[in-house]
Formats: sequence, C-alpha cells, structure tokens
Amino acid sequence: MRVATIHAPGDIRLEDRPTPELTAPTDAVLKVVASCVCGSDLWPYRGENPIEPGSPIGHEMVGLVEDVGPEVTSFKPGDFVIAPFCHCDNTCPHCLAGMTSGCQNQGFTVGGQADFARVNQAEGSLVRTDGMPDPEMIPSLLALSDVMATGWHAAVAAGVRPGSTAVVVGDGAVGLCGVLAASQMGAERVIAMSRHEPRQKIAQEFGATDIVAERGEDGEARISEITGGVGADAVLECVGTNASMDTAFKVARPGSTVGFVGVPHGVDLPVRRMFGKNIGLAGGMAPVRTYLPELLEMVLAGTINPGLVFDATLPLDEVAEGYRMMDERRAIKVLLEP
Amino acid sequence: MRVATIHAPGDIRLEDRPTPELTAPTDAVLKVVASCVCGSDLWPYRGENPIEPGSPIGHEMVGLVEDVGPEVTSFKPGDFVIAPFCHCDNTCPHCLAGMTSGCQNQGFTVGGQADFARVNQAEGSLVRTDGMPDPEMIPSLLALSDVMATGWHAAVAAGVRPGSTAVVVGDGAVGLCGVLAASQMGAERVIAMSRHEPRQKIAQEFGATDIVAERGEDGEARISEITGGVGADAVLECVGTNASMDTAFKVARPGSTVGFVGVPHGVDLPVRRMFGKNIGLAGGMAPVRTYLPELLEMVLAGTINPGLVFDATLPLDEVAEGYRMMDERRAIKVLLEP
Repeated sequence: MRVATIHAPGDIRLEDRPTPELTAPTDAVLKVVASCVCGSDLWPYRGENPIEPGSPIGHEMVGLVEDVGPEVTSFKPGDFVIAPFCHCDNTCPHCLAGMTSGCQNQGFTVGGQADFARVNQAEGSLVRTDGMPDPEMIPSLLALSDVMATGWHAAVAAGVRPGSTAVVVGDGAVGLCGVLAASQMGAERVIAMSRHEPRQKIAQEFGATDIVAERGEDGEARISEITGGVGADAVLECVGTNASMDTAFKVARPGSTVGFVGVPHGVDLPVRRMFGKNIGLAGGMAPVRTYLPELLEMVLAGTINPGLVFDATLPLDEVAEGYRMMDERRAIKVLLEP
Repeated sequence: MRVATIHAPGDIRLEDRPTPELTAPTDAVLKVVASCVCGSDLWPYRGENPIEPGSPIGHEMVGLVEDVGPEVTSFKPGDFVIAPFCHCDNTCPHCLAGMTSGCQNQGFTVGGQADFARVNQAEGSLVRTDGMPDPEMIPSLLALSDVMATGWHAAVAAGVRPGSTAVVVGDGAVGLCGVLAASQMGAERVIAMSRHEPRQKIAQEFGATDIVAERGEDGEARISEITGGVGADAVLECVGTNASMDTAFKVARPGSTVGFVGVPHGVDLPVRRMFGKNIGLAGGMAPVRTYLPELLEMVLAGTINPGLVFDATLPLDEVAEGYRMMDERRAIKVLLEP
C-alpha cells in the first residue's frame, strides 16, 4: 500500500509499504477515506523536529474499519469512523476524568497519510457515524480527528464563557477552529489575529467579530484599545512559538487564562509576568476523544462546519505538493484523497 | 516612629523615621497593632532580591485607623482593620472580576514592621472588625493580611474540589495555610510535603491526611504510591524555587492544575511537560481583598485558626532577631508587637 514518509526536511515521499496488520487484540486497521496535512507535520518538514529517515507520517484521518482485534467489540468491518490522532482506552483514571490524551494506554496514529493505517485502543478511541456520510460531510468529519477538537480544547482551557472577550493568536487551521469554538461557547467578542485575507474571511465565517492584522506591540496595542485597556478574558494560543506565546500573555487580562494547543517550540514562559498578573496557562495535547461525541453532533446538525479550513484537495499521490503548499502558505490545510 | 529597614543581605535595623502622612485623598494611616515577617521578606534578606539600602520593610499588618483622607468614607479613626498587603480600589474592572491584586490602582504596604504605616486605596482595601477583637484573635486576623489568603489562593488556583486529592509543596506559613485551605474546600486527601516535625504537626492540625517527608524523586515516588499511580488532582506550589516547581509538576496528574503562590525565583517552567500532560499553571499574587470577607467570617466563627502558624512573638525592637529566627528555620513565622 501507499504511505507518505519523511526522509529529511522538505523531503516527503509516497512509498510502497506492507499494509498494517493487527498487532494487539485492541487494534483496528482502517482503510483511509480521507487524511490531511497538519500544521504540526510542518515542524519536522521544516527541520524543527528530529526526523528518523523513512518514517511514515500523518495523524489525521477518517476511514472504514478493515479489520479489528478480538477485544474490539463495538466496531466491525465497513463501519465509517473518525480516528482521534491520540488513541485511548477510555477506561483508565485519566480517561474517566476526561483527559483522554493522557491515557495510561496512550497511542498515536502514525502514517495516516496512506491507504491503510492502524489504530491502537480502537474500542476506546474510534467514533462511528450511522452509515456512510455524504461526501460533502467528509472534510468536517476529518477536522474532528484533530484540528477542530484542538481548537475546541484551546477554548475550553482558556475558559471561554458566554459574554466574554476571546483573543485567538494564530490563523492556521487550529486557530480558525479556535475562533469557531470560542464563538460557539458564546464569547461576545472574538478577536482573530490574522494578516492573511483568506484566513480572515474564514475567521469571520467562523464568528470572529474583530480582526487584528498587526503583530507584536502594534497588535497588543490594538487589542488593548478594543478591550478598553482591560485585556482579553480568554486567550487561545494556537501557534506554539515564543513570539505567539509572548503576545498571548501580553493581551490577557489579570486573572485570565491562556489556553495553549500549539506544540511549544523554543517557548520560554514569562513566569514573573504570569505571577504578577495572575495569568494562568492551561491546555496541551487535545483530548480529542473526550470532545468527539459533542462535536460530531454539532457537525451532523450543521451547527459547525469546520471542514471550511480545507482550501485544497489533492490525491494522495501528490502528498509532497500538499506539504509544499502548506509550507509556503499557499494553502491553509490540504485534504488528501486516496 | 520606629520602622524596620533593610540595608544589605542579613542587615535589618529598627530606625527612627517620620510617621507616614496622608499623601492622597484615598490614603489611610494605621497605628500598627501587630505585624510580622513574611517568607518573601527573606528573599532580599538572603540576597536573592536587589536591595535599596535603608528601605522600610514589612507588608503584613493589622491596626487601628489613625487618619483617613477625604475620599475614605467607610473608615474612621479607631477602627480595627486588616490591611491586605496589596491595595486596591475594589471598583476597577479587574477588582470587579475578583482579581483585586491586579487593580488598576494597585498599591502595596511598605514598611509595615513599624509603629505606623500607610495604606493606599484604603476605602477599597481595608476590612474592619466590629470593635476591638480579643487579643487571642490577633494572630489569625494578622494571617489574613497575606499568608492565609495566599494559601487560599493556591487552593483556588489549583482547583481543589470536594473529594479530591491535593498535594501541598512547601511547609512555610503559606504552605501550611494551603493545607488548611485545601482541607476547608473539602479535599478528601491533603498530602503535605514537609520534613520538619513542628511543621508536620501544624499541617496535621490544619487537616493534612498524609505527610511526605521525602523530597525530589523519592517524594514523587511516595506520592505516586499514595495516589495509586494517578497523581494529584490539585497541587499547591508554595515555595517558588525551580526544585519545588519541578516537584509540583511531577506529582500533578494529567489534566490537573498547579496553583502557585511562591514568588518565582529562578524558575524555568517545564512547558513541554505541561503540554504533553495537560498540566496547567494558575495563581500568582493573591487577591487578598477578594477573599478577606469570607476568611474573616471563618476566623470569627472559629472555623479556621490560621494564627497557629505564628510560633514566636517578639517585640518590634527585636525585629532583626525575628528575621534570623526565620532565616535559620528556628521559627515558622514571627509575630511582631509594638
């Protein structure tokens, strides 16, 4: 079967590899219906993460169950499922407390940009739809495997409440989903920090009430102005760089929380500022499985349409071009079809 | 009048200085009834903070109102009041949101180890008792000006809930008050990390169910054992060093929050661990005024007795000895009487 692999920074190849098999009684193998490239895939692509040459890549997918191990009793071949990028048994103390991304039997989708992929802890991780969804629903369902749930987690972690003012730092797919989440949670004012027009447009479709195109000090001054000098009630940090984190803490009001979901790279947290201003930090790797049922219901009801973050679709054969498009910001997020 | 001053690390003097006067219509001047030495006073005393030689020192006090500015209408000379170390107008947006330590008109008690001291924003900051309290009540009331409210803030920030397991890192007066707070908030298990017997004893009087005397990896292993490998639901970090913060994050379960109130010194936050385990950080300088009415009621009702943290009382004349006793850990906390 075909699977995307990474060999060095900028070097993505589609290779022929053996089809994954069940390795444990809790496994399932999926036939991938759609996968995509994640902002976090760009970290190794840009040489910011170490690479084991030839590693399969990709962790977001929806698909049809191909085979299940003997301990997987709720799913059968042919079921259409959403696979959270982070796998969980959904029975351990951390899962029961809602922190499924901290599962004691944690696993990850590896090599999801492929024809087939394996899910560990399939019983606890997968969520099924009733029958095969309409094709136009696929992008939004795919978004639930990571970005939409991750944006949602940023808003939950930041403590977005009805009537509040939320700032979203980052206009990637996760940031845009963060805007959608904050808006759905009833934030009265959702300020999206974005200087790219196509992204600004999606942010507005997702519920952004204000767009701040400025960065750094100018952006901070603009948000201070918008909030009457008070600062934001909740800040969603959806990038993971030191600059974005710095901005997040500078626009947050005393007593508020920065919800962070961008994998931190080179971040040095401003602990003195956090202490002096009582600005908390919460979040991390999103407990996708925890949020999935609620988000799926919202997608199926048409309440949210996170699939809008996909502005390009390519055949899996062109996965390398998909990475280039995202790296060069020619696309927000690229959907891959087998 | 007499006031304690600091001239260099280890050099505390009681000096004669002019009695503070009203400098703004929102000021009050208090005649100090009791003050004390704070763990945070030890930072400059130990040379960990810069010192302006001759600066007045001390920020915890209770006293009698001596004089008030024209905008202070709720207090009159002779009133017995508790003065939060951090002053606030209690009307700005941050105060109204409960974050009185982030007040837009923030002030601080400076030179509280004295015969008299000034409070800015007296109208918003001070809290009065009905008449002169019984002398045996003074230590607990004094504790409300900082340490008890600070321990309470750690528990609030850490999200202590009924039935939960809380770990308190640090057995200074604030840590002990954190034990008391967690216990009052209904934590089923309160684990105090302490290796000093007199402090262990107070921790137990304050509601600690377990004492962990080990530090570092041994302490972490012990807490893992106590919590069945799950970790703590809430962690109160009441020291402020890198080692204590490290321990706090290592004993916290995924999805939990470290509530920190120890002024951070040399702390490098483990952002990758925080992200991977979804362990948040919240807290900072305690909004004392916000908690004061509730805590005062608990003290007056005899529900809490935070004054137990004072294990030594000295006349103000011996303030330098008070610092030595605390520095050498011969006393947990020293109360100073004029």
